[in-house]
Amino acid sequence: MKLGLKAHLHYRMVQITDLLLQLEASDTPEQVLVQANILFTETQHFSRTRAEDGIGERIWLRVDGDFICDYNAIVEITRKAHDISHLPAVPPHLLPGEAVRYLMPSRYCPVDEFHNVVASEFGHLNGGARIAAMRDWIARTIQYVPGASSSRTTALDTYVQRQGICRDYAHVMISMARASAIPARFASVYAPGVTPQDFHAVAEVYLDHAWHLVDPTGMASADSIAVIGVGMDAAEVAFMTSFGPAELVYQWVEVDVLPD
Amino acid sequence: MKLGLKAHLHYRMVQITDLLLQLEASDTPEQVLVQANILFTETQHFSRTRAEDGIGERIWLRVDGDFICDYNAIVEITRKAHDISHLPAVPPHLLPGEAVRYLMPSRYCPVDEFHNVVASEFGHLNGGARIAAMRDWIARTIQYVPGASSSRTTALDTYVQRQGICRDYAHVMISMARASAIPARFASVYAPGVTPQDFHAVAEVYLDHAWHLVDPTGMASADSIAVIGVGMDAAEVAFMTSFGPAELVYQWVEVDVLPD
Amino acid sequence: MKLGLKAHLHYRMVQITDLLLQLEASDTPEQVLVQANILFTETQHFSRTRAEDGIGERIWLRVDGDFICDYNAIVEITRKAHDISHLPAVPPHLLPGEAVRYLMPSRYCPVDEFHNVVASEFGHLNGGARIAAMRDWIARTIQYVPGASSSRTTALDTYVQRQGICRDYAHVMISMARASAIPARFASVYAPGVTPQDFHAVAEVYLDHAWHLVDPTGMASADSIAVIGVGMDAAEVAFMTSFGPAELVYQWVEVDVLPD
Amino acid sequence: MKLGLKAHLHYRMVQITDLLLQLEASDTPEQVLVQANILFTETQHFSRTRAEDGIGERIWLRVDGDFICDYNAIVEITRKAHDISHLPAVPPHLLPGEAVRYLMPSRYCPVDEFHNVVASEFGHLNGGARIAAMRDWIARTIQYVPGASSSRTTALDTYVQRQGICRDYAHVMISMARASAIPARFASVYAPGVTPQDFHAVAEVYLDHAWHLVDPTGMASADSIAVIGVGMDAAEVAFMTSFGPAELVYQWVEVDVLPD
Repeated sequence: MKLGLKAHLHYRMVQITDLLLQLEASDTPEQVLVQANILFTETQHFSRTRAEDGIGERIWLRVDGDFICDYNAIVEITRKAHDISHLPAVPPHLLPGEAVRYLMPSRYCPVDEFHNVVASEFGHLNGGARIAAMRDWIARTIQYVPGASSSRTTALDTYVQRQGICRDYAHVMISMARASAIPARFASVYAPGVTPQDFHAVAEVYLDHAWHLVDPTGMASADSIAVIGVGMDAAEVAFMTSFGPAELVYQWVEVDVLPD
Repeated sequence: MKLGLKAHLHYRMVQITDLLLQLEASDTPEQVLVQANILFTETQHFSRTRAEDGIGERIWLRVDGDFICDYNAIVEITRKAHDISHLPAVPPHLLPGEAVRYLMPSRYCPVDEFHNVVASEFGHLNGGARIAAMRDWIARTIQYVPGASSSRTTALDTYVQRQGICRDYAHVMISMARASAIPARFASVYAPGVTPQDFHAVAEVYLDHAWHLVDPTGMASADSIAVIGVGMDAAEVAFMTSFGPAELVYQWVEVDVLPD
Repeated sequence: MKLGLKAHLHYRMVQITDLLLQLEASDTPEQVLVQANILFTETQHFSRTRAEDGIGERIWLRVDGDFICDYNAIVEITRKAHDISHLPAVPPHLLPGEAVRYLMPSRYCPVDEFHNVVASEFGHLNGGARIAAMRDWIARTIQYVPGASSSRTTALDTYVQRQGICRDYAHVMISMARASAIPARFASVYAPGVTPQDFHAVAEVYLDHAWHLVDPTGMASADSIAVIGVGMDAAEVAFMTSFGPAELVYQWVEVDVLPD
Repeated sequence: MKLGLKAHLHYRMVQITDLLLQLEASDTPEQVLVQANILFTETQHFSRTRAEDGIGERIWLRVDGDFICDYNAIVEITRKAHDISHLPAVPPHLLPGEAVRYLMPSRYCPVDEFHNVVASEFGHLNGGARIAAMRDWIARTIQYVPGASSSRTTALDTYVQRQGICRDYAHVMISMARASAIPARFASVYAPGVTPQDFHAVAEVYLDHAWHLVDPTGMASADSIAVIGVGMDAAEVAFMTSFGPAELVYQWVEVDVLPD
């Protein structure tokens, strides 16, 4: 599937401010960049570094006053949408070293709190079947309510409040997977069919010796997702991290399915 | 300085349990292993993987019933204790890619909450001078009180409660450094002079293009610290992570300064 | 039922300290004091005040060094154990003024977080039937694990962690009842059959124009409970509140069913 | 001083909903109602009850669809603005019984966390001098930033984040006072000079055997404040508590100083 991606950011700084951007679709064997273009208003610095796990890049900028960013890309998604429910878990001692940290608690995923819930609700299932059951429970139980959560909302809060947006769904999914000794990371993505159109977020779990995208909101399918980057949770892979106050002026995202 | 390290762990499992251990001193240019030996009671699996940032190793074990581990090592510390107060910060856009994540919030370090405190209390200082002022403020303000904190205590809690142990001190130091756009990570270490003798934890900050150990408890100096491993915070570099209930039977740590 | 109550407290103060005690069984129409005796080591001040809702009393003391308190009482419980499951809720506008605050969030009962859980899990039930279903859910789902919670554990934490002691069970019960617009308060009590013997805590809900004791741990029945006092949650009705450091030396509680 | 008070609330309900209103100025010796008028759109029930500590009243309503409330009153404030800095604290054992609960932790005031901060920062001061120093510290340190806090923000959060609105200022003031064994409650009020005009909130502390209003935002003075009601914190004395979803359509408050 070929996707057209557009993002427009307009923020206003009150002083010289360092910005870290991570909003470009990554170029990987499963999603090939056909073309990509990113433009900024004047910046004092510009540098790129590889992002977490070598997936995608981060851009450092130093800006002042009005900051506008326009991003356009076309990406060809060759990833297949698998049924994950039959995939086996990888025994911990066979996990690759770089997957181990994705078993640990993080800012929004207090994994340590979820051990008992997971054992009692999903203890009869293993591997992909357990992940699928968790995904379905989250989709059924949590309501998509913009404004119900904030940048301080953790998976513990969402589990009880039962409301949130895509990042909250992903945080609950990740916490439950890790509490099952299944590595799980947060993926910042573009996907068509997200309502309202915006940056989207899903979970990615490590089963059968590979990473698999899982969207507990049910909005996106692995074969139509363009991954920007991955990290422990939303804290590690924000589309923009500002090291100083930044006022939102205007922002939009557009994702279109293009004809082949 | 030559250190003799000994650790003895004795835990009891009620079922077959996966354990992740990270308690061996790492072998790096700044601390050279002279000899090292680790012994376990019977385990079903055993594997080693590189730990975070390639510093040290993690060991996977699968055990049942009583689990005993004995570790002995001699390590030669060649690291110098610098005065960090004159070191410059590295501008964000010149940070190496692998240091960027150490600016982000994590399980015990809600960096986003500390921006205003840091700006108002330490805003007049930069780089190493700021780090030194934070370290001194923490040493002066927080009391070392075993039992006052738990595995759920965050840097936000400690900042207000003003009591804690080494890991809590390190979490406050790390949160304040990151809120200053200075990368900071958690280091699990051995050090002589820690009272009572136990595993110890300090912060490590990125200044002048290198990592520097900082101990806000004042118990340890960089030239007498043997680093086990590093991570975002205590959640990523526990000496033992158990994937199931594990009852502590007995545990001790001994660190001795050996004659040259 | 006639109960013999004994409590022995031994604490050590490092400075002159104000203590607030609330550990005597209250004298009400439903539980009549047959005899009661309380003794302290030397104190500088001593005063009594009525406690919350006029149930029981609080004692102020000012002490230094070792503080020992011995309490002995015999109380005749005439309260009946009702089946609450058929009792109707009282419409909010008919609630007595003093019951209204027991609909509100408190230190350990963040009621506002529980609205969605309660609506989706118990929304098909009303009044006593809803309370009974919540009580049974808590009894079935939460494990009694001393040490799993702390003085900072809220009902939100317990709901996810699924472990705790009597006060944690009561906090979840209270949060769920209030989120259903049913007033609920925390009762500090003595009861036989509590294992291990200690001060006990239960919830009290307002149904059918009266307060009814509910014990989600299943350890105690309304006809064998001696109420000490009531409040919003454990924060308002601790058996001892110390306005300064107090070290526990030794403490025990004994509750015996006496022959009629 | 004579104040003219006006409040207009317009909310929309999606189902039949119980509402608890507490927005009328109370009638007390220190603030005498000259005239007062409250009007609602159609309601199914209406009842009034005394509010906390017998100060002011709460109104129960049951409404559906659009709900509009118009409140108008004139109140004569005879309360004097004292300098509280010389007032003595009341020794705990001489506190009236109804003041004791205002020493306890509550939803937004985790008093237990503040003992060390208060002892180390304000331990050299007592009574009114301590309260005045806390008030001035809060006024100097915390920034008034609408939107920086939410209905989940506690005094612990605000103490670190150093941003908030009037209720957050009051919660920090109350937490610090209670941690000093000085009873403190939350007062919901009207006051002129609040920018932007809205319901306002201040703290009330018990010194020298009486309650004294303290506004750490510095916006209002005790001689120009019309108290609506009091409670443990914002959770107990909201101007509107809705037992079901209520969408804000429009709301304004106006407070005018009238000529004598």
